[in-house]
Amino acid sequence: MTPTGILGAGSPVLAFDVGGTDTKAGLFDADGTLREVVRVPTPYSVDGSGNAVLAQLGALAQGFAARHPDLEPAAAGLIVPGLVDEETGTGVYAENLGWRDVPFRDAASAALGVPVAFTHDVRAAGKAEYRLGAAGSYGNVVVVVIGTGIASAIFLDGVPYSASGYAGEIGHAVIDPGGIACACGGNGCLEAIASAGAIARQYNALAAVPVAGAREVLDLAQAGDDIAVSVWNTATDALGLALSTVAALLAPEAIVLGGGLAQAGPALFEPVERRMNSLLTFHRRPVLLPATVGENAGLVGAALGARDRLTGAPA
Amino acid sequence: MTPTGILGAGSPVLAFDVGGTDTKAGLFDADGTLREVVRVPTPYSVDGSGNAVLAQLGALAQGFAARHPDLEPAAAGLIVPGLVDEETGTGVYAENLGWRDVPFRDAASAALGVPVAFTHDVRAAGKAEYRLGAAGSYGNVVVVVIGTGIASAIFLDGVPYSASGYAGEIGHAVIDPGGIACACGGNGCLEAIASAGAIARQYNALAAVPVAGAREVLDLAQAGDDIAVSVWNTATDALGLALSTVAALLAPEAIVLGGGLAQAGPALFEPVERRMNSLLTFHRRPVLLPATVGENAGLVGAALGARDRLTGAPA
Repeated sequence: MTPTGILGAGSPVLAFDVGGTDTKAGLFDADGTLREVVRVPTPYSVDGSGNAVLAQLGALAQGFAARHPDLEPAAAGLIVPGLVDEETGTGVYAENLGWRDVPFRDAASAALGVPVAFTHDVRAAGKAEYRLGAAGSYGNVVVVVIGTGIASAIFLDGVPYSASGYAGEIGHAVIDPGGIACACGGNGCLEAIASAGAIARQYNALAAVPVAGAREVLDLAQAGDDIAVSVWNTATDALGLALSTVAALLAPEAIVLGGGLAQAGPALFEPVERRMNSLLTFHRRPVLLPATVGENAGLVGAALGARDRLTGAPA
Repeated sequence: MTPTGILGAGSPVLAFDVGGTDTKAGLFDADGTLREVVRVPTPYSVDGSGNAVLAQLGALAQGFAARHPDLEPAAAGLIVPGLVDEETGTGVYAENLGWRDVPFRDAASAALGVPVAFTHDVRAAGKAEYRLGAAGSYGNVVVVVIGTGIASAIFLDGVPYSASGYAGEIGHAVIDPGGIACACGGNGCLEAIASAGAIARQYNALAAVPVAGAREVLDLAQAGDDIAVSVWNTATDALGLALSTVAALLAPEAIVLGGGLAQAGPALFEPVERRMNSLLTFHRRPVLLPATVGENAGLVGAALGARDRLTGAPA
């Protein structure tokens, strides 16, 4: 559940979270409450143009207008996966969705008839966590989202750092050179070892009876299954090592862990924190905090972007 | 040699680089030329106060005044190793030099009678490289100094990032968990594998005839000595891995390598770049650039800080 009035008072806004599988659309009212969420499959962009995605955004907005005639959105927030250049408003590349160099911000604005704030899905979810979640009192924060993949949003001296969209790729930092193959084409990336998808895959590669997901691997580990224990420990060790490197380089006061795997709670946080701290000496030790905005953090971050667009606040 | 007029025109300034072994003092004239460098041993702070260091700075300034009566310094730049808090002007801790929580900026200003800019030695050298060296055209740059130890200075969106002094500790990012012991108390830190000191130590731990430094290890490696080849390759592999992580997290356009080990030139840069690029896939690949300001980069960075203090430019 997304808390009532999470955005605070302001203009009604639309929010679109175009995901690798599904697109979520949300409508926030003047109180900042998420009034409705609609989920539809994301169309693959066969011609690389992203036009099917843009057409779908228009249809979703029309649906909201028909069902909520009392609400007139003044802006929209749009977030997409892959490589995103916020400065130009371009979706540069998304492996799973087929587009290349789509001017999403301007095209969505034309399709929707309102100003559009455009950013990367994980950076938007990170912004929601940073602005509305547990880490808001810190200047330097890294929000790590661990789900099918692993990515992060970086806030330094209170400001998002994106490096034209290339920063924060902690999931594709190499933990084990020459290790297990990663979807990115590399080997031994954090994502290939410690994402929810990787945990399930590695268990299934070793065990006689396959599991559907990381949650089952954790349940098996807690029941004493040796293979599950080994896979879970390898994943939490890798996360702890990666976070120790973040601490050495960036020294954030806090690291927020979100995404599906963070739902594991202490079974994830305790071994990751223990491992991280065992590798640190004089460094500043970040506090590890669970994400609190919930499953719609991406939509909430997109809506924050839309509100910021209207008030002229920095991204 | 430090180039004539390197700082450009401005007020004469003093610069002090308090190192783990020696302190270097420099006097820059109104043309920005380094007119004299004096090197003296750094006194160990037996009482933790740093007073012996401060007294020495006063004496060095008096020496310059006596020998260069035509130059009246309008400010001073002071840099020290260890943990440094620029915001409060405090030398928090320096293992080798014995001080704790010394208010260097204000105490040096009182001792010298001029405004003092105070920062960390590697961040000052990094600033000199960033402002005056080869990477100045890039917004996001990491300057890595590889000598007895390894540390870095980080510039993001054109601004130094220090996290109250804790950022940039790439030398104490763990490359090999459970690996060789590091002076910091950890294991398998980059500095324990790939610093000039570590390269010599590891060679000497394996070889019958000891060497005095990393330069000799490189010479032996180039002559085909198996142990030297192995130690050198382990070091350059570790550097390449660490830089690939920097690329994944921060995506700098450029990484500058300086310090004594960077004098090895292509024998260092080529294997490090090859290793780094072999670990990267979709990431933005930084260009690796050699430091160009030279052996007095710390003094030049301190002097830049002093000049900035006078003009009110940001640190």
